[in-house]
Amino acid sequence: MLQIMNRWLLPEYIADVLPAEARKVETLRRAILDLYQSYGYELVAPPILEFLDSLLTGTGSDLNLQTFKLVDQLSGRTLGLRADMTPQVARIDAHLLNRKGVTRLCYAGSVAHARTPVGSSAREELQLGAEIYGCATWEADFEAVSLLLETLRVAGLNKVYLDLSHAGVLEGILDGQVKDKGEVEALYSLLQSKDRPRLAIWSQCLPTKSAQALMALTELNGPCAQVLADARKSLPKHPLIDEALAQLENLAAATNAFKVNVELSIDLADLRGYQYHSGVMFAAYVDQLPQPIARGGRYDHVGQAFGRSRPATGFSMDLLTLANLAPLAQRKPAIVAPWTLEAGLASKIAELRVAGEVVIQALGGDDVETAEYLCDRELVRQDSAWVVKKK
Amino acid sequence: MLQIMNRWLLPEYIADVLPAEARKVETLRRAILDLYQSYGYELVAPPILEFLDSLLTGTGSDLNLQTFKLVDQLSGRTLGLRADMTPQVARIDAHLLNRKGVTRLCYAGSVAHARTPVGSSAREELQLGAEIYGCATWEADFEAVSLLLETLRVAGLNKVYLDLSHAGVLEGILDGQVKDKGEVEALYSLLQSKDRPRLAIWSQCLPTKSAQALMALTELNGPCAQVLADARKSLPKHPLIDEALAQLENLAAATNAFKVNVELSIDLADLRGYQYHSGVMFAAYVDQLPQPIARGGRYDHVGQAFGRSRPATGFSMDLLTLANLAPLAQRKPAIVAPWTLEAGLASKIAELRVAGEVVIQALGGDDVETAEYLCDRELVRQDSAWVVKKK
Repeated sequence: MLQIMNRWLLPEYIADVLPAEARKVETLRRAILDLYQSYGYELVAPPILEFLDSLLTGTGSDLNLQTFKLVDQLSGRTLGLRADMTPQVARIDAHLLNRKGVTRLCYAGSVAHARTPVGSSAREELQLGAEIYGCATWEADFEAVSLLLETLRVAGLNKVYLDLSHAGVLEGILDGQVKDKGEVEALYSLLQSKDRPRLAIWSQCLPTKSAQALMALTELNGPCAQVLADARKSLPKHPLIDEALAQLENLAAATNAFKVNVELSIDLADLRGYQYHSGVMFAAYVDQLPQPIARGGRYDHVGQAFGRSRPATGFSMDLLTLANLAPLAQRKPAIVAPWTLEAGLASKIAELRVAGEVVIQALGGDDVETAEYLCDRELVRQDSAWVVKKK
Repeated sequence: MLQIMNRWLLPEYIADVLPAEARKVETLRRAILDLYQSYGYELVAPPILEFLDSLLTGTGSDLNLQTFKLVDQLSGRTLGLRADMTPQVARIDAHLLNRKGVTRLCYAGSVAHARTPVGSSAREELQLGAEIYGCATWEADFEAVSLLLETLRVAGLNKVYLDLSHAGVLEGILDGQVKDKGEVEALYSLLQSKDRPRLAIWSQCLPTKSAQALMALTELNGPCAQVLADARKSLPKHPLIDEALAQLENLAAATNAFKVNVELSIDLADLRGYQYHSGVMFAAYVDQLPQPIARGGRYDHVGQAFGRSRPATGFSMDLLTLANLAPLAQRKPAIVAPWTLEAGLASKIAELRVAGEVVIQALGGDDVETAEYLCDRELVRQDSAWVVKKK
């Protein structure tokens, strides 16, 4: 018996999506993909499995640790089960579409994580996102931010906190002085947790100016105007830093001017997802959730790793988490019909279904039990005709 | 350079779905799921990964060989990447919904095959299907067949060949005389290929009556009425065989009476998918494809293996193959708009998008290049207003 029981247990942090909930996800999926279509985004669907090399191209060790590995019987090479679709979509832009101009792509598909990601309780997600390739200026970042906010509005989330950051600030501060990739990853993690004592130890070997700037980063967070002003005072002069702050300023101004449902802030030490980001980065928060509901930003280096340099920006989110925040829709009303082989009944049922009704035939004379539909009417014979009656 | 090139190559028989094609798949996916909704099927979404034991419950060695295995870091147990969603959906019915009456479920999701399945050129599929639990009689099989034919009609396939078979016929012939599972699997494969010489050798140890019946099976294929009449003559008397032939007769009669777009036949040696089927089995063929476009049938034993016996019938297909048979839709018309931060333009664009138009902003003054949309109009300023003009 224990053996049989085990058969229907799922691995930790992996779950089924059951009726009613699955329909909510489907409805939201359609609404969001329709939104992206209205902006001219083209839909793509990369495979769930690829050679591991390709899946990790241009990304960091985080994604590697998150990726399930398996062996391809046909090639003998290692495959990865994707943990992130963004590098796949960048590959499609770089090599399959191979266009010169701006390309907008969107996608929705399953991704899996070998470990539970920080701040999440799910190892399988339905990743949904939109990406813009071929535009290097902040206007593309602004379109990505706008579309992200529209996405959350479609999902019924009208109060959003958007946290901005920029990978160029740290690049300017380090200015090529730290070459070791592991060292830089350790630094990102210290900045992320704003761990000042250990940050001081880490930066001992750096020139005083750089060490002070790193320390200043941990305090450069809050309302945009204030943080930008403080950053210009406390950070060293460097073309990358100037450029980064100017981009953040443009993006903040445009977002404030056009979007009403968002509260903007900047956190220059928030560099999660740093492993492939190269410019503006953003994370969207809502009241109901401690972790970000969506993240995005610029990642110009990924296309380059695929052998074709293309500016890139975009965002993605987990549709299951997003759907979870929305209330369940009302159950769709349905009509119960008896099961007979009578031609008149069959054509009446067909007619109702074409007209948009849900008609459920009671097989074996059984009571109809369903979580998704509300059986409020039934088909009954009246004289020689079949008519719909309230139950 | 070779190294970079390799990064964008995909494993054999695994492919991206690119713009225009992906939209065709999405449109068809919606139309079919809407059809299932009109029949009262509830949507479920099981995970792509499960413990291997669960994924293979009630199935045979075929599915095992087809399933990618990987190690779960959290539990140390072996996980499978699903190659078939049907056992997952049976698990949901048996244990999560736990209803007494009839339950109708439908699903659409990615599945992967470790080897290329016979007659296919893809190791990743988008499996879409519908299942009925809790009804043991042929009426449920008829609903499954009807819904399958409706599905193909929605996909634009109006001429379908439906091949029927029944697992009970062979069960009746063998009558418990062959216990070894491997032996039975070998038999299925001999019957499938109608390999009479080797079949004669295989059945040497059986009583003459059974051996003759097995040989007769290889010739019992063709139009329904003829095959049923011949089967009643050449097969031994056995309650399982009588029951199987009666069910096939009912199903064929009802299908012929109600469906106009189908040509029915029976092939009693066609037992593909035998590994979990227990009753009526069917395969749908279309002119454009050598292998079946969809398969289905009854699998009452799977729920039992999950510890709760539930009659089950249904069907599934690969949506990517199905979409491939349909012609590309016309490109959706789109309007190109310039990129400015002007409030009047922004509100005009928003208004057009809400009205169902695709509006693509030309980032960086670039020409808009897209496979999915046809940019036939543009937004231009006329005096103080923005108006849509033909390009």
